[in-house]
Amino acid sequence: MPTTQIPGVTVNTQANVYFDGKCVSHGLTYPDGTKKSVGVVLPATLTFGTGAPEIMECVAGGCEYKLAGTDTWVPVVPGDAFKVPGNSSFDIRVAEAFHYICHYG
Amino acid sequence: MPTTQIPGVTVNTQANVYFDGKCVSHGLTYPDGTKKSVGVVLPATLTFGTGAPEIMECVAGGCEYKLAGTDTWVPVVPGDAFKVPGNSSFDIRVAEAFHYICHYG
Repeated sequence: MPTTQIPGVTVNTQANVYFDGKCVSHGLTYPDGTKKSVGVVLPATLTFGTGAPEIMECVAGGCEYKLAGTDTWVPVVPGDAFKVPGNSSFDIRVAEAFHYICHYG
Repeated sequence: MPTTQIPGVTVNTQANVYFDGKCVSHGLTYPDGTKKSVGVVLPATLTFGTGAPEIMECVAGGCEYKLAGTDTWVPVVPGDAFKVPGNSSFDIRVAEAFHYICHYG
């Protein structure tokens, strides 16, 4: 079951806008200080770099992703998640919309 | 002072995507049940319709807006807010980005 709501968090009101708006997210802070973000990738093929490792959780829509150093596009549907190593990158292609939660670390 | 963070809310993980992504928002629910949203309008000139009355609070960036039935474009900067009647509309034009909180009712 995808995560439809996240209770009890602090929301950053200013969005993060990447790739001319092809990706828009809002930062969240949990009561214990953990930071995550909720966002959407619109129809595009993009390459995202990572600093910290990330887990991308699909909450609606879908995408295909390809991790750096691999040749395989992997489809993702709501409820799926994929891990991306730190200091790395991944390609993502989105046909309609990919709604996600990004977990760091 | 613009509102930079909203504490203690439940966030809808699926974004609302309007106008092919020119406007993206995430819904919020307060502990008392009040619903608001945080979003961003990217460079565009758009017309938004309202159901309930809305207050649009600028938290970063800026825009110009023109209420239905008026001829005046009004500039908005962070910390400003403008009211839109219910069952009405407003035009908005954005040069860079307009980050907002939408309050209903």
